[in-house]
This record gives sequence, C-alpha cells and structure tokens, in this order.
Amino acid sequence: MTAERTARKLIAVGSGKGGVGKSTLTANLAIALARVGRKVGLVDADIYGPSQPMILGNQGQKPVAREEKLEPVPSKYGVPVLSMGHLVEPGRAIAWRGPMAGGALTQLVDAHWGDTELLLVDLPPGTGDVQLTMLQKFKPAGAVLVSTPQDLALIDAARAGQLFDQAGVPVVGLVENMAGYACPHCGEVSDPFGKGGVEEAAGRLELPFLGRIPLDLAIREGGDSGTPPAATDDPLAQPFHDIAAKLDVWIGAKS
Amino acid sequence: MTAERTARKLIAVGSGKGGVGKSTLTANLAIALARVGRKVGLVDADIYGPSQPMILGNQGQKPVAREEKLEPVPSKYGVPVLSMGHLVEPGRAIAWRGPMAGGALTQLVDAHWGDTELLLVDLPPGTGDVQLTMLQKFKPAGAVLVSTPQDLALIDAARAGQLFDQAGVPVVGLVENMAGYACPHCGEVSDPFGKGGVEEAAGRLELPFLGRIPLDLAIREGGDSGTPPAATDDPLAQPFHDIAAKLDVWIGAKS
Repeated sequence: MTAERTARKLIAVGSGKGGVGKSTLTANLAIALARVGRKVGLVDADIYGPSQPMILGNQGQKPVAREEKLEPVPSKYGVPVLSMGHLVEPGRAIAWRGPMAGGALTQLVDAHWGDTELLLVDLPPGTGDVQLTMLQKFKPAGAVLVSTPQDLALIDAARAGQLFDQAGVPVVGLVENMAGYACPHCGEVSDPFGKGGVEEAAGRLELPFLGRIPLDLAIREGGDSGTPPAATDDPLAQPFHDIAAKLDVWIGAKS
Repeated sequence: MTAERTARKLIAVGSGKGGVGKSTLTANLAIALARVGRKVGLVDADIYGPSQPMILGNQGQKPVAREEKLEPVPSKYGVPVLSMGHLVEPGRAIAWRGPMAGGALTQLVDAHWGDTELLLVDLPPGTGDVQLTMLQKFKPAGAVLVSTPQDLALIDAARAGQLFDQAGVPVVGLVENMAGYACPHCGEVSDPFGKGGVEEAAGRLELPFLGRIPLDLAIREGGDSGTPPAATDDPLAQPFHDIAAKLDVWIGAKS
C-alpha cells in the first residue's frame, strides 16, 4: 500500500438488482465530477455484463499493460476507464467462476491510475464475489445505491445496503432512477415503474436521498451511442450534476 | 440419476443483463403452462436477488426438508416453487462466494419435485457460478432468453446465448420485454427502451423470436402484489399465454 494508493478514494455504485440504470448513473456521475475539476476514473466491475465502453464511447480500444499492471483507457469525457469490455471480444460470454471474477476486479482497480483522486466503481448486481472481493481488498470510502421505485428492486437495494453496512462502508445515499416518463405525444408524465418508492425507502432506512432521474429515451440513446447526457447541455444533464454535487460535498466532508 | 429425474425437463430462463423482466416472464410462463395442464414447477435460481416469493404471493412460507431434500412451496397458481427468498429473511444480504451459490442451486433443483414434468429455472443475470453449475450438473433441455430492445441489454443477451450454445443447450428463442408503453393519459404508444431490437437480434443470431411483452404498470403491480397477469383474464395475459404455447410446442417436439 503506497501513499499514492491510500490517497485515492473509491466510491462504489451498487444496486442489488440489475437493469436499474447503475452503469448509466456511474458514467454520468463520473463525467459530472470531471466537469467540476475532480480527477476521476471509472472501474467497470460488472465483469459479466460490462457496458462502460459503449456508454463512454471507447469501445474497441485495448488497455496496454506496463510492469504487469493495466493502463486505464482514456475517454473523450476526461474520465479514464478500465472494463472487462475492453479486454474481451464483444458478444463473448465471460463464463468465469467467482474467484476469477474477483481476480479480474483486482486487475482493474490495482492499475496505473496515476493522479486519479476518485475512482467510481460500477458494481455488478447482487452481493457476490466481486462485491466481497472489493470490500475485503479495496474498501470503498462510500457507496451510492440506485434503484427504480418498484418494490422488487427496492428489496434488492436494501440487501445491497446491508452488505455495505456490515462491512462498515457508509452509504452516501440512494438515487431513484426511471422515475417519471413524459409521453412524447402529449407530454403528460406517468410512472411505469411507480413513484417515490426510493425516497420513502431512504427515509425508512435512515439514509440520505440523493435525487431522482427520469425515464427518458434520450438517456438510453445517449448510453447506446456513447454520449452520456452529463457531457451535454441538455436539461437531462441537470439531475446527474445535482447528484454529483452532493457526492462531491460528501467526499469533501470525509477528507 | 433416477428415472424420475431424467423424465423431468429443465427450461432455463436467462437474460445476461438483470432488470429486463426475466423473473416476471418466468412466473407468468409457469402459470400459463400450468393453466394448459402441464405439471410445472419453478426454481428461483437468482440466489442474490430472489423475487419469486413476492411475484407468486407465497412470501414468508418456509420449505420443509424431508430426507435431506427440500419440499417445494406451493403457490395459489398451481406452480410449486423453491427460492432462496423462502430460506433467508427478507432484506438480508446473501453475501456468498460462487461455490456456495452453486451449492444453493443444487439444493433447489435436486428437491422433492414429485410428478413435476417441467421445471422453469429463473437464472440470475450474467454468466457466472450459478449458470456454470446448472450447465454442468443439471443440463437444461432448452433456454429462453429475454431482453429489452436496448442495445446494451442485447449485447448481454447475446453473451448469455453464447454460453448456452457452448454448452450444447439449444436456445428455444428470444422474448422482447418492455416493448411499447401506452401513455395512461393519451393512450399513444411510445418506446422508452426502443423498439424491435430483440426481433432484429433474433434474426441476426438465427434464433426464433417468441414474442413481445409491453411495458405496463399493471404487469409491475401484478408482480409486486403477487398477482401475475397470466393468472388473470386481463388482456395483458395474452402475450404470456402466446409465448407459453410456443414453448409448449417446442417441448412437445423434443419429447
């Protein structure tokens, strides 16, 4: 453990359940923090379903190894990233048992992150090997939990929260994703995944509520095309910047 | 391996990415198959995020063990089920490393399934220990893959498909979920997760396309409240019954 290592803070972004927008949130938070001058990197620890190369638009690039450690891959948003998606062929199944998945996480975190002061870790869903390896080897300074307002997703988010809690990792707060969908025809907002459930759950679990991100075609398309909203001046960037600002304050308070 | 065991067919329901509605699809397919007279059981292999007890409305019930094997828990829809959700306290993190997760799967599949002829296995997202244990110990007769039309989800679905392919498990077909959302205000349909991507991917991968399930509040609420649409006479039951009929034909052809 060098001085360089201990000075760097890890923030885990987890969800319990998959498909709630964790990777999209992580990428947009990283970009928002880079835009306010933080030196931030991103580890895509979703070993079985890495999506950051697509979201950050640096698919097809390969990280080089130097002195047996990987060099992070730059992205055009000022956020270097390491992902299994940079190491395996697109569409190939990563059929690994747990210890190998834990080993892969180690390669991605213990890399040449240089002067990166903050590392956001996009965790896979669940509470398995990758989470356990991270908690044991690279204890994060804090964890951000994301969920849709749906009951089933909230149960899993509470499970993930408990895992961090047991490991003594403070939960920075909860983010509600896919909240509110404005009909492109009439403009009226409705809630295909329900409404307010995450803020309510945050209250019940006595955790801060960090904000709400709408369900919006443009966020999905931005992710599919490598142009995350936080990198643009679109109004959709705002919720990500607001949440990033709260995270920034939290990190500042912990320093 | 007894005659009883070899006569029973396993159908895996997988997705690559989480949060695409795999558990909802599995529960509704099982109910639809039970309604046409199949003796069908359900294994909730999503060890880290078990949601079947909530979807099937038998939360809080505990399976009993007899001669060191579990007895499936009945549900009011004629579908017995075994899930980690029946074995652990709600909200507790299941912080297990891979080999334990694989062991849990064994307990759920190798149980007193009696005259159950068809076992639908709701897989966790990804291509990790649970999938590998299942392929090695309980080779399924076929796999149904579900995805949203979003590119990021499709990439992961292709990865899961490749895993089954490598193991010699035929893919029955692909299901598109969260396709088309009818605005509750104006009734117009739009596509927050895109449209047609799964049918296109099925064509590209030369796999059958089994059908499309809309994004609908009532499906989510049915899942959250233990009343899956396939058990009702709601028009939302129809796509599930149509897909179940195709699965039934496929299974019949394999017998």
